[in-house]
Amino acid sequence: MDLSFTTGQIADIVKPTATRGSTTLPVRNIASLGEAQPGDLSFLGNPKYKPEVAATAASVVLVPPDYDGQPKPDQLFLLVPNPSAAIAQLCARVEQLLWPKPAPGIHPSAIIENGARIAASAAIGALCVIESGAVIGERTHIEAQCFVGRNARIGDDCWIKTGARIAAECELRNRVRLQSNVVIGSDGFGYEFVSGRHEKVPQVGNVLIHDDVEIGAGTTIDRARFSRTEIGEGSKIDNLVQIAHNVIIGKHCLVCAQTGISGSTVLEDYVVLAGQVGLAGHLHIGKGAKITAQAGLQANVEPGATIKGTPGTPYMLEQRINVLRLRLPELFQRVGDLEKQFKKSASA
Amino acid sequence: MDLSFTTGQIADIVKPTATRGSTTLPVRNIASLGEAQPGDLSFLGNPKYKPEVAATAASVVLVPPDYDGQPKPDQLFLLVPNPSAAIAQLCARVEQLLWPKPAPGIHPSAIIENGARIAASAAIGALCVIESGAVIGERTHIEAQCFVGRNARIGDDCWIKTGARIAAECELRNRVRLQSNVVIGSDGFGYEFVSGRHEKVPQVGNVLIHDDVEIGAGTTIDRARFSRTEIGEGSKIDNLVQIAHNVIIGKHCLVCAQTGISGSTVLEDYVVLAGQVGLAGHLHIGKGAKITAQAGLQANVEPGATIKGTPGTPYMLEQRINVLRLRLPELFQRVGDLEKQFKKSASA
Amino acid sequence: MDLSFTTGQIADIVKPTATRGSTTLPVRNIASLGEAQPGDLSFLGNPKYKPEVAATAASVVLVPPDYDGQPKPDQLFLLVPNPSAAIAQLCARVEQLLWPKPAPGIHPSAIIENGARIAASAAIGALCVIESGAVIGERTHIEAQCFVGRNARIGDDCWIKTGARIAAECELRNRVRLQSNVVIGSDGFGYEFVSGRHEKVPQVGNVLIHDDVEIGAGTTIDRARFSRTEIGEGSKIDNLVQIAHNVIIGKHCLVCAQTGISGSTVLEDYVVLAGQVGLAGHLHIGKGAKITAQAGLQANVEPGATIKGTPGTPYMLEQRINVLRLRLPELFQRVGDLEKQFKKSASA
Repeated sequence: MDLSFTTGQIADIVKPTATRGSTTLPVRNIASLGEAQPGDLSFLGNPKYKPEVAATAASVVLVPPDYDGQPKPDQLFLLVPNPSAAIAQLCARVEQLLWPKPAPGIHPSAIIENGARIAASAAIGALCVIESGAVIGERTHIEAQCFVGRNARIGDDCWIKTGARIAAECELRNRVRLQSNVVIGSDGFGYEFVSGRHEKVPQVGNVLIHDDVEIGAGTTIDRARFSRTEIGEGSKIDNLVQIAHNVIIGKHCLVCAQTGISGSTVLEDYVVLAGQVGLAGHLHIGKGAKITAQAGLQANVEPGATIKGTPGTPYMLEQRINVLRLRLPELFQRVGDLEKQFKKSASA
Repeated sequence: MDLSFTTGQIADIVKPTATRGSTTLPVRNIASLGEAQPGDLSFLGNPKYKPEVAATAASVVLVPPDYDGQPKPDQLFLLVPNPSAAIAQLCARVEQLLWPKPAPGIHPSAIIENGARIAASAAIGALCVIESGAVIGERTHIEAQCFVGRNARIGDDCWIKTGARIAAECELRNRVRLQSNVVIGSDGFGYEFVSGRHEKVPQVGNVLIHDDVEIGAGTTIDRARFSRTEIGEGSKIDNLVQIAHNVIIGKHCLVCAQTGISGSTVLEDYVVLAGQVGLAGHLHIGKGAKITAQAGLQANVEPGATIKGTPGTPYMLEQRINVLRLRLPELFQRVGDLEKQFKKSASA
Repeated sequence: MDLSFTTGQIADIVKPTATRGSTTLPVRNIASLGEAQPGDLSFLGNPKYKPEVAATAASVVLVPPDYDGQPKPDQLFLLVPNPSAAIAQLCARVEQLLWPKPAPGIHPSAIIENGARIAASAAIGALCVIESGAVIGERTHIEAQCFVGRNARIGDDCWIKTGARIAAECELRNRVRLQSNVVIGSDGFGYEFVSGRHEKVPQVGNVLIHDDVEIGAGTTIDRARFSRTEIGEGSKIDNLVQIAHNVIIGKHCLVCAQTGISGSTVLEDYVVLAGQVGLAGHLHIGKGAKITAQAGLQANVEPGATIKGTPGTPYMLEQRINVLRLRLPELFQRVGDLEKQFKKSASA
């Protein structure tokens, strides 16, 4: 990245309450304390890394006001109330520079069918296909080579990255972000077994994605059998997740990578599914429940519960069992010893 | 979806043996009994939901002939021998309306290399690439932005959804459906370790997909090292499944989402793999075997067996172990108690 | 595949030290001994398949010099020091025929933004999008419908297959192969929980892929929060793998299908992750460690260790536990018996 910030520009963004030292180098990168090189900016976001500040080669370091160390020569400390928040502000500025809002308009190579309605402030990238009846909202940015099917509706201020596929009749509300190669509205996996063959059950519902949802690269969300598959406001879905037909995900949930949710399962608000979790179909996961990585659930979960393992087990119990299972060889030995001793004493 | 059916149109499709009540509303959606609103059609597909019929707000309800309740005002009951089958007929009609067969022809933006042969009745979408030597059969529909590589062959009446990739030399027979972003014919993962480096083993076989197979969004099927990777007639593969080189899947199998099948493993006919299953390479899974979700198999499976867990274990045994493992804390306690009692009695 | 080799052409490639018998058929396919048909070439790569040579229908068989059997009528044996190596040479030749290097140049349908620099010897396929500032090296082949974002850099002799997405600012060094629908540089999954909502943490780093890396179909590699996500020289990644932000993979690692690696985890050189493995974030996996299929790790791994299971356990211990867990029903029975016997003897 050919970005470069003067220390003055950095200070304008993070607004330090005080400074120590100085550097002549412009800032070209952000790095952790341990990895930073001259020309990098770093930060003390967690007190446990305090000793690393004295050793870092970073040219600029964001430190909290109570940090009492002194910078090395050609090194600048900027004292800020919350270094992690300051980094987020810097990153947001870098993000704007790296991905400037494209100019509104439709790339001449895009294929726009008759009857598609595209807001004048939207930007449609090269080689996109927008089918008839599709609606694209204000300021929405669709990158190159995306597909928006017949009658699909995309709201305002969405960002759809290259290669995403939004099938016919599906709906994205506002400020939705899709990473590359997401598939919205593939057919649900439904068959009836008739005379030795699997006959397809038509999947004629759609997918509805509410405001402020983000969906990771390669994730697939199936359309409903009928009615709809739904992702609630503010929920965030990671890469390569599978969401089956008629799943309902509540508001502000997190679903980590490679997790799979089977048909008609419902997540209430604020549920967290870690990576590679599998949920059977028709389950109900209560508000705020947390499911740890690789867990496999076949039963409902109470609100607020933390569940681990396959089959899903209350967290503390599963942790205890995981310790005890390592002692199974010992336990078999102890039971064998008891049997021998008892036999010996019985025959004595 | 801007679809609307009069009750007369509905009756023409489901052919009720009798009716009760009437409604003035056209039907605009299908929904479950509990979720239905006025203007929706619902159905009693499973006797356990019988009490929900009296409470539903649906305007039209399909019920079996022996259902004895009465409709509310402005509500119509249609008595049909099999409400689930009637819903499938309705959905099939909706599917035809939602996805009408496109007119035959090649979109002017598609890139068709010299030497590709495309049936006159086929429909090729915008911005597709069809390479030289590829063959596309009668009435096959390839949606926008798909890729069909050199010498690939696609049979009659296939439906290839947007973003699917069919690599060179691969073959799809008839009535095959690929969901979006499927990859057919990626290289198998084969390397030889030589002098500290992984040298690529060329993957020069292909993929052969038989009649009536459906493959889910984002699924990847590797070409064979040589010879072929094969998916048998009528088998259905869900989303984000990985099928490695030289795998042979029999007829009428079901493979659920996120399952992975390693190289050269063979599934006989009618095998069912649930979600997130992992199969090691070179296994043989017997006819009609069922493997439950998240199971991890490293050994062959007999025909008709049901296998659960990692490592794969006969279903009933694994169920029993899953109960007993929860009692490990108790078992350790009991053995400790026995040891103490025995020691005490021995020293008495 | 319409390929055909005369036996003379085969001999030119594998350079046999001696021959036995002869065949009039040209070779049209390579197959295992058991599956081979007349017109196929097969080989004895592993002594355990020796009995299959006498039974094979292959027209040409590669055998080691010490194989003493005689060919059937119309069958040719070619004696070669290492039949497996000879097959690899043949496959490499077939690969060249199946995928000839395309002529250099840019397909007229590709969209090349101003300021992209493409080597004259590179080949850019139909309907690709190459954004401004992107750099494409010598002899690199980018198949149809790929995306290369702003300022992305791709080195020499790379092969990028149809549908791959290389996002802005990411870098591929030399001889990198991407299979179809790979996503390089999707956003990392980072949010801060503020006032009941998940606020996006900008992801402004990139992805760096070193020489001789291959990445499988549908795999997703997230850009770093800042700094970079990195895949070391010679490492090979299979299909549908998820690699999160700031992961560092060393040299010559193997990562099998559907494995997921969480943020900031580091793999040293020569690590092997089998299929469907899950690694938590911020772990350190030592040089040459092997992690078996479906394992779930939440702790660091020593160099050279072999780890199995969830939670990750030393291989031999996990194997033993997997045997003992099958005997849990028996163990509960034995403890119950002991309790009864002890009670009886105590009351005696």
